[in-house]
Amino acid sequence: MGEFELIRHYFAAASCAQGGEGVALGIGDDCALLSVPPGEQLAISTDTLVAGVHFPAVCDPFLLGQRSLAVAASDLAAMGATPIGFTLALTLPEVRADWLQAYACGLNQMAESCQLSLIGGDTTRGPLSLTMTVFGRVPGGQALTRSGARAGDLLCVGGELGNAAGALPLVLGERVADAAQAEPLLAHYWSPQPQLALGQALRGKATAALDISDGLLADCGHIAKASDVALQVELERLPLSAALQAVLGHDDAQQAALAGGDDYVLAFTLPEAELASLLAAGWPIHVVGRVGAGSGVRLLDGGGQDITPQTRGYQHFKETP
Amino acid sequence: MGEFELIRHYFAAASCAQGGEGVALGIGDDCALLSVPPGEQLAISTDTLVAGVHFPAVCDPFLLGQRSLAVAASDLAAMGATPIGFTLALTLPEVRADWLQAYACGLNQMAESCQLSLIGGDTTRGPLSLTMTVFGRVPGGQALTRSGARAGDLLCVGGELGNAAGALPLVLGERVADAAQAEPLLAHYWSPQPQLALGQALRGKATAALDISDGLLADCGHIAKASDVALQVELERLPLSAALQAVLGHDDAQQAALAGGDDYVLAFTLPEAELASLLAAGWPIHVVGRVGAGSGVRLLDGGGQDITPQTRGYQHFKETP
Repeated sequence: MGEFELIRHYFAAASCAQGGEGVALGIGDDCALLSVPPGEQLAISTDTLVAGVHFPAVCDPFLLGQRSLAVAASDLAAMGATPIGFTLALTLPEVRADWLQAYACGLNQMAESCQLSLIGGDTTRGPLSLTMTVFGRVPGGQALTRSGARAGDLLCVGGELGNAAGALPLVLGERVADAAQAEPLLAHYWSPQPQLALGQALRGKATAALDISDGLLADCGHIAKASDVALQVELERLPLSAALQAVLGHDDAQQAALAGGDDYVLAFTLPEAELASLLAAGWPIHVVGRVGAGSGVRLLDGGGQDITPQTRGYQHFKETP
Repeated sequence: MGEFELIRHYFAAASCAQGGEGVALGIGDDCALLSVPPGEQLAISTDTLVAGVHFPAVCDPFLLGQRSLAVAASDLAAMGATPIGFTLALTLPEVRADWLQAYACGLNQMAESCQLSLIGGDTTRGPLSLTMTVFGRVPGGQALTRSGARAGDLLCVGGELGNAAGALPLVLGERVADAAQAEPLLAHYWSPQPQLALGQALRGKATAALDISDGLLADCGHIAKASDVALQVELERLPLSAALQAVLGHDDAQQAALAGGDDYVLAFTLPEAELASLLAAGWPIHVVGRVGAGSGVRLLDGGGQDITPQTRGYQHFKETP
């Protein structure tokens, strides 16, 4: 079976997912073709997941299918983009029909839920890894970048933090927990829900945004740097799930919320005047701090004391000496 | 050094390559943003190269930098697209400054020559592999697909065939040759020149096109299938370089031209009336056969006898039983 046939056979559902609007030519030629409506821009992001680095080498391929697309789609949410499609570069040590079927099933389900259509790809033999490139569209000049935060804005997040970090010891088999506590955390790890609708709702309102992948403090550092402002995070305002606190305890749950990766929840800065209407519309927005003049990220305790830790989330590489 | 800093540091030249036109936002945010002129479509292709599968695990990183981008850009040529930019997903076992510097240097050089700007990427730790996603633009409806060939068209290629296949035993150290013979073949393997200008010149003229990556016969099979026609390839008309014939001998050189991969020369079908003006304009076009009614690909010898072989080029995967 050739590579196109392989993709066509297993990923047929994703290649005709509802995202099809804007896809002028899909899988099967040298390139896919997208049509972008006049006045809109195309948003593009690439993410690679490597077995043994970003997910356990032995894992459920259905869950991996969900997670691999969700992680990439979350970058579209962070820009306020409307999803169009994605390409999949799949490197596999061997072709196993059962693995591919389950992986494709998870992927197809997430593609449908995100309204992303599979428009192209490449399959190669090698150590298991996946590279997704996602495409969305956004009205010209309305994309949510990291660089527009202004002193006085509120710092907000789009949901509970730390759940994926809390799940990691369960994923790795280093800890066990009651099913009732474990399940919501594991669900968050394996099938994070990209906040695409929230991202679109924040267009023209949020001044800066990103999705939390390296941990709240580290990612706030990206906004602070790009916007040339200081961010203050208030420890006591971090939204923590009951499941996370039950599994980790309150203090470790706060740590997970601050420094744990893989949340894929939006963090954004918002002029105070915009908050009420968004909350009234039912968006799950939590204020966790504020933007000030200066630079860097500070963590404040309930009394306003600076308790900024030194650790700053996960980086894939440290420079060699 | 964070991933953005890593990319910014080593790949700075590529990220401000001349392709910048159309890039509204480059590296450093959650997504890149592209502007597509009204009436044009965006062409997209993804290619993965894995160490030990698509190139020797130990090789010159400068040459790999050139080759990895050229292979991807060739898909833009095959669609007749004008280059805009590319993303790079780079998976590395370790960060070695000398390796990255040399790789980036080769990549930057090819990016400049193709007028492609690096707009985003991802760096991860893992077994060495590279996924490039390339972007170009093409006037609506004018992309060169594989599906428009019509009976009576000429079958043409954009240059000499088989040089990369002839280089492979030299690359792998399985054969030695005089430098004068080896160099043109090795140059073709390591830095194929995507036929971007030819692809654009064929817009509105060629009825079907692709770039030869799996070998002429196998790739002609893709056009025949997509266009629902038969293709006849005439063995004696294949353009062979002097270097290839000197290294392999005439018969093996023909085999390399028929079934060798990695040529990245365009193959296309052309109404006979279009040929003269393209040749007069100096395009390196060789007629190697003709389109007929029916299906599949046939190879004809000098006397018009059918000598179609059974082998059909390289496929990354065979289906498991």
